[in-house]
Amino acid sequence: MLHPVQLILKKRNGGKHTPEEIRFLIEELSSGRLENYQLAAWLMAVWFRGMDDEETNLLTQAMIESGDQVDLSSIDGVKVDKHSTGGVGDGTTLVIAPIVAAAGGRVAKMSGRGLGHTGGTLDKLEAIPGMRVDLSQNEFLEQVRKIGLAVISQTGKLVPADGAMYALRDVTGTVDSIPLIAASVMSKKLACGADAIVLDVKFGHGAFMKEFEDARKLAETMVAIGRLRGRQVRAALSSMEEPLGSQIGNALEVDEGIRILRGERKGTGLEKVAYELAAHLVQMSNQGLELEAARQQVAQIVSSGQALQKLGDMIEAQGGDRRVCDDPLRLPQAAHKIAFKAEKAGYLGGLAAETIGTAAMWLGAGRRTKADKIDPAVGIVLEVEKGQPVQVGQTLATLHVNDQTHLQAAERALHGAFHIVPEARSQEPLIREMIL
Amino acid sequence: MLHPVQLILKKRNGGKHTPEEIRFLIEELSSGRLENYQLAAWLMAVWFRGMDDEETNLLTQAMIESGDQVDLSSIDGVKVDKHSTGGVGDGTTLVIAPIVAAAGGRVAKMSGRGLGHTGGTLDKLEAIPGMRVDLSQNEFLEQVRKIGLAVISQTGKLVPADGAMYALRDVTGTVDSIPLIAASVMSKKLACGADAIVLDVKFGHGAFMKEFEDARKLAETMVAIGRLRGRQVRAALSSMEEPLGSQIGNALEVDEGIRILRGERKGTGLEKVAYELAAHLVQMSNQGLELEAARQQVAQIVSSGQALQKLGDMIEAQGGDRRVCDDPLRLPQAAHKIAFKAEKAGYLGGLAAETIGTAAMWLGAGRRTKADKIDPAVGIVLEVEKGQPVQVGQTLATLHVNDQTHLQAAERALHGAFHIVPEARSQEPLIREMIL
Repeated sequence: MLHPVQLILKKRNGGKHTPEEIRFLIEELSSGRLENYQLAAWLMAVWFRGMDDEETNLLTQAMIESGDQVDLSSIDGVKVDKHSTGGVGDGTTLVIAPIVAAAGGRVAKMSGRGLGHTGGTLDKLEAIPGMRVDLSQNEFLEQVRKIGLAVISQTGKLVPADGAMYALRDVTGTVDSIPLIAASVMSKKLACGADAIVLDVKFGHGAFMKEFEDARKLAETMVAIGRLRGRQVRAALSSMEEPLGSQIGNALEVDEGIRILRGERKGTGLEKVAYELAAHLVQMSNQGLELEAARQQVAQIVSSGQALQKLGDMIEAQGGDRRVCDDPLRLPQAAHKIAFKAEKAGYLGGLAAETIGTAAMWLGAGRRTKADKIDPAVGIVLEVEKGQPVQVGQTLATLHVNDQTHLQAAERALHGAFHIVPEARSQEPLIREMIL
Repeated sequence: MLHPVQLILKKRNGGKHTPEEIRFLIEELSSGRLENYQLAAWLMAVWFRGMDDEETNLLTQAMIESGDQVDLSSIDGVKVDKHSTGGVGDGTTLVIAPIVAAAGGRVAKMSGRGLGHTGGTLDKLEAIPGMRVDLSQNEFLEQVRKIGLAVISQTGKLVPADGAMYALRDVTGTVDSIPLIAASVMSKKLACGADAIVLDVKFGHGAFMKEFEDARKLAETMVAIGRLRGRQVRAALSSMEEPLGSQIGNALEVDEGIRILRGERKGTGLEKVAYELAAHLVQMSNQGLELEAARQQVAQIVSSGQALQKLGDMIEAQGGDRRVCDDPLRLPQAAHKIAFKAEKAGYLGGLAAETIGTAAMWLGAGRRTKADKIDPAVGIVLEVEKGQPVQVGQTLATLHVNDQTHLQAAERALHGAFHIVPEARSQEPLIREMIL
């Protein structure tokens, strides 16, 4: 008979868990028999000692088995999914999903809500008037079969052990552990049943992983877990020093995504990253297709308007107002637009992503606590790109504001976010590496 | 405003706590506001990162302030106390306390109960018919003023934060942390108000600290904490590879203590250790006395019968039957005495202390869980000393048994406890070092 304290001591002393021990831990957790304080001590021991690939796989497996698994077998074709470890102004799903669906991939995506700087994909979708994300399993499958695309909220029955564990990690200083993150992300992705998955693992100031090497280790761990279960998995390592898009906020990010699909934001970082990830998913759902051909297909699908059409189809299928695709001003608009101006001249050397995210959160675009309500209309539009010259008095950003309660806190945060430097610096590519 | 998760992250990342942070933690714990899972995560972070002397002092101080402190100022003379980190067959308190009191020291000792191999000092005292350990504060002080000696149970109001923290450490794999042990022991000792304290820090198989170097670090840490608060503190580092006494069990250890004070156990390890610790306390309570003179005084006090007289006075003052001093067979006796015999010949190379403690626990001398009731009469008498020759069939130990339910488990444990070797080995001194 195993006891939780044995497992704590074993991990604390640098031992390796057996399959029985990992299963026991997750079963005890799922059944509510495991005391939170024992789980907390174990999590901290894991933070210090880590877990090897075999333990991480076993944990992922046990977590998947703690709940339901989505059966996508009724959908023909290659089912694809995409996950981002989270960043600021990262509205790539809104761009990638319609492109891949238009190219013939089947995008059956379940998503979460955001806690922190900015909203999650669901919060962004809900900024579209009328849009529903709480589809039933049958509605979800039916929609993917019909139009090749659905993005909905995941149910509590999917990997319930992850919910319980994540809530505790959040309040015990054990979030930033590579094996725990890998098991959390991959258990949910794998339970959702996709055949091919692209992971966007962020590193830098606005990312969860500040260091590139940590992000790479996380990416490699997650790819290995997916492969072991017979899935196609690739991971991009992409920089989150600066916000990815130039619009931060829920409706603002939907607006930017629509404008990319309309061809109005040529050459931006968000467009480049979204196209590249989309190309990988298109290649993964078309055996034999070269990556370069997939990239050309992505460009063609956007320029022909097929991707925008597909986004409209999804919005309509989920009860939303598809007219936002033709007229993004139908999205919620903030009452006040306040310019934030440069106080010195030079070049924009950098924009601290996390700080800008925090400023947007103060305006109401993100949640400080789970209970906070998001205002879809508010946020920040960046008016200068990294590397560009800046004059004194030039508008660096426009704040989209409704409730002005925390406006000063947002402005104070922004003051530290723009780094004006005396000389222009060269840009590094946003995607530094792909783990294939 | 501090948050527990900040403190967890700071310690986890190797930071040093401020006085405000330590106070905050203990106040939150004492008030019941601190979540157990957050304390558990912090404790595990401390296990990995440690605490420096300043943090350990601050923790000790905050823990003392979490409850009442005993005021011994109504007692004239030097108030002395003694603490052992716990071992097997360690009945030194029963020998040391009467000697030191007879020499003029004021022994005002509050003690705890044992959990694990064998009973604590209180459990041993309660083996004496009629003996009370639950004296009120006033009865306690009055007794020390009158006869110079009292040993009672500590109240829950003394360092309540330690009780809460220890209970959690026990179930989260965070017991064996030097700063946490040091703060736990010293907060209780200092709250009890003694001027001079001797600590007996055990190392080896039957001790909490298996390694000598760990025990020394613990001893040094505790001595430093006491000194900083203006107390005289010394620590012995004594071996617990073998049980200290030759009788393990509650009445059996009282019996052995009485026999030492009666001069019937000349030259045994228990006698040597008890005399040496007593000599240090006698020296500490008599400024200007040389240690060698204190040693001679100890021997004289025992041989003159004054120490036995003092033990009798204490037993009588606390309601017990003092006739046990003249006739130890008045202590509870077990119904069955079962010989445990040698299966091979050679020399007794060692006796695994913890294993023998476990065997005694199976007989009912110790507690497996807090709810277990101790049988005062049962235990184990070792019949051969380390280094002595052993013949096949010779009795190695006598089991004193009432309830035979777990007799086989006890015997199984004993099989692994006696190491018979082909050659006699030299003995090392039991006290390896004193931290003065």
